[in-house]
Amino acid sequence: MDPVVTINGERLWASLMDMAEIGKTPGGGSGRLALTEHDAEARKLLIRWAEEAGCTVSIDGLGNMFLRREGRHPVMAPIGFGSHLDTQPLGGRFDGVLGVLAGLEVMRSLNDADITTERPLVLVDWTNEEGSRFAPAMVSSGVYAGTFDKQWMFEQRDRHGVSQGEALKAIGFEGDAPIGQPGFERFFELHIEQGPVLENEGLDIGIVDSVQGISWYDLVLKGHPTHSGTTPMGLRRDALYAASRLISGLIDEVNAQDPEAMVTFGELDIESPSRNVIPGEIRLSLDLRHLGDDRLKALENRVMEHIDAVVSETGVVIEAQRSWHSPTLYFDSDNVAMVEEAAQRHGLSAKRMPSGAGHDSVHVAKVAPTSMIFIPSLDGVSHNEAEYSSPVQCQHGAQVLCDAILQASKA
Amino acid sequence: MDPVVTINGERLWASLMDMAEIGKTPGGGSGRLALTEHDAEARKLLIRWAEEAGCTVSIDGLGNMFLRREGRHPVMAPIGFGSHLDTQPLGGRFDGVLGVLAGLEVMRSLNDADITTERPLVLVDWTNEEGSRFAPAMVSSGVYAGTFDKQWMFEQRDRHGVSQGEALKAIGFEGDAPIGQPGFERFFELHIEQGPVLENEGLDIGIVDSVQGISWYDLVLKGHPTHSGTTPMGLRRDALYAASRLISGLIDEVNAQDPEAMVTFGELDIESPSRNVIPGEIRLSLDLRHLGDDRLKALENRVMEHIDAVVSETGVVIEAQRSWHSPTLYFDSDNVAMVEEAAQRHGLSAKRMPSGAGHDSVHVAKVAPTSMIFIPSLDGVSHNEAEYSSPVQCQHGAQVLCDAILQASKA
Repeated sequence: MDPVVTINGERLWASLMDMAEIGKTPGGGSGRLALTEHDAEARKLLIRWAEEAGCTVSIDGLGNMFLRREGRHPVMAPIGFGSHLDTQPLGGRFDGVLGVLAGLEVMRSLNDADITTERPLVLVDWTNEEGSRFAPAMVSSGVYAGTFDKQWMFEQRDRHGVSQGEALKAIGFEGDAPIGQPGFERFFELHIEQGPVLENEGLDIGIVDSVQGISWYDLVLKGHPTHSGTTPMGLRRDALYAASRLISGLIDEVNAQDPEAMVTFGELDIESPSRNVIPGEIRLSLDLRHLGDDRLKALENRVMEHIDAVVSETGVVIEAQRSWHSPTLYFDSDNVAMVEEAAQRHGLSAKRMPSGAGHDSVHVAKVAPTSMIFIPSLDGVSHNEAEYSSPVQCQHGAQVLCDAILQASKA
Repeated sequence: MDPVVTINGERLWASLMDMAEIGKTPGGGSGRLALTEHDAEARKLLIRWAEEAGCTVSIDGLGNMFLRREGRHPVMAPIGFGSHLDTQPLGGRFDGVLGVLAGLEVMRSLNDADITTERPLVLVDWTNEEGSRFAPAMVSSGVYAGTFDKQWMFEQRDRHGVSQGEALKAIGFEGDAPIGQPGFERFFELHIEQGPVLENEGLDIGIVDSVQGISWYDLVLKGHPTHSGTTPMGLRRDALYAASRLISGLIDEVNAQDPEAMVTFGELDIESPSRNVIPGEIRLSLDLRHLGDDRLKALENRVMEHIDAVVSETGVVIEAQRSWHSPTLYFDSDNVAMVEEAAQRHGLSAKRMPSGAGHDSVHVAKVAPTSMIFIPSLDGVSHNEAEYSSPVQCQHGAQVLCDAILQASKA
């Protein structure tokens, strides 16, 4: 039986709360947009804590930070784990931060237990996961994994015209470690669920074995903007009625026949809206998610059938364009098994589940065996100051992360 | 048999086109917001034309202009007719203007035929019918008829902070004629339909015998704004889905069971919309119209039933508040008969119909027997630069107006 390393939940919680002071918002959340002074301050605090825990620090040309705890065999590929310290403008205290500080707590607990792992351990803080200041999201893990181009990333600008490359230099975190290094033997990311499933089912741990596929569409509905009082119902081409038919018809059918799909119309803009004018043109966004590329494709076909039906029934023209697509990702089965075993070992209730949101691990999974661990989010709320997971929930997540790392770090 | 006065359609069209030059818009329409310099210029042109036609001019304290052609019996109550010269910011060349210039053309044609009517005739240009610069619409005919208060009207401000009273003084059209005078024996208003019914049915003339009742509602739908990728369909409270259920469910039922009702959701605003967030809160406007107060009331009850059903099926809370109500108005049956007879006399195809939009005549009808005449609008378009009725259609409308006035002006 391997030695049990027990996570210090109080220390983890204290670190989470200390970190949350940086960029603290009036509503009790955190606002640390990527590559701002608040981000720099958070990075410096992490470096201080990691160095106090005996780690060495390297920073690559993207600002990704790698905090290394040496193993018995320094030449072996390290076990990686981590997440991100940046947040949304009015973000929470746990999204990303938990994955970083739980990784720190793993190393602190190993120190307490005086354990040296076979492989080196590397805690990562990925730059600009949120994509809130500079689009897109998860960009630096993407460049690390070869998905995105560094120069393209550096040229992305915030709404004040500052480029991501300039912002990185300005806070002094453009490092000299080579991009794409180190390569990991395995990678784990602990994260809050950002959804209601674990809470709703009363579970401690989500064993994340996959990430749903995503397709985004931009729709334009074109009817005829005429007077609300003078146009009989039978002579209307009402774009909002057509949109409503599409939205309710599609969602009703999905609920009945394909309840694991996710269908969201998040944005709806009426052109020149007026209380007494029939909506003539509407822009509508559609976010489709499903586990399995066949099922996502079938869902997309279902959408097109609904669009065709609404067009023929209402006389409103609908243009649909797919603006983004990300296929379903299946995480490494050995990683997943290690997480499952760790949860069982500690008597934590758990289930395998997909991630509905994207994470840095989606990119890392291209270059290393990777998986994720979820803990419950209160009311499923995230990207919001009200985001909350309890001290015990955070401790459970860190404990599972610790056990999985220990298992993976065996030579 | 009464003498037939034949309207000069070419002269009417030329006057319409001359008037349209004032405030001409790039798209070929007219922009003459109430009480602007363009409005003043239009008023001056009308006064010049009316004086050339032998009329005397009086202006009341609201800027309403009364252009009088004397009758054989000056002490008898005059026959009134007219509409308004103000337009929407990017308005058309016919809405309101046709009713004024057709009235002028009636007096010119009477001059040509050397006819003096028994009763005096008074052409009216009502101030600020559109309500586009200063809300509400139809305000000066409303004060004339005792519906609105003059002081309240004067205090309404445009978006630059100028009050309606100040604007009236600034263009020099605050007159000294007493408000509420003259009282009319009868009143007629020729107007474009602003809807597609006449064109769709191939008719020349709408004999407007009523104005639909109107109720406006403001709705607020409150769901829960969570992540599009992490919230399973069964755990959502999607305010846009609820809105779509309400919109499509109500309109489908009305189309099937009550097709003469009019149901328009013109404005829909999602609070903090984002492509990957389930809409949490929505503001929605609802415009209900029906002929007959019982039928409008039944329609409103139907809406409440739909709201209750959507709330219980979706878990989204819906607040509904009625913000405005105008009951159904039935025009004077003798006026309506005179219009009908005039159309028949000239072999014009016509049908009795309600007005779906409000007009100054709604207010005038409170103090004098009143009715309206419609001519077709191309594609039903109005409040738009593309608004169009042909020279022949305008001539037909003016001819019916002329005949109705002659009939009414008998002692």
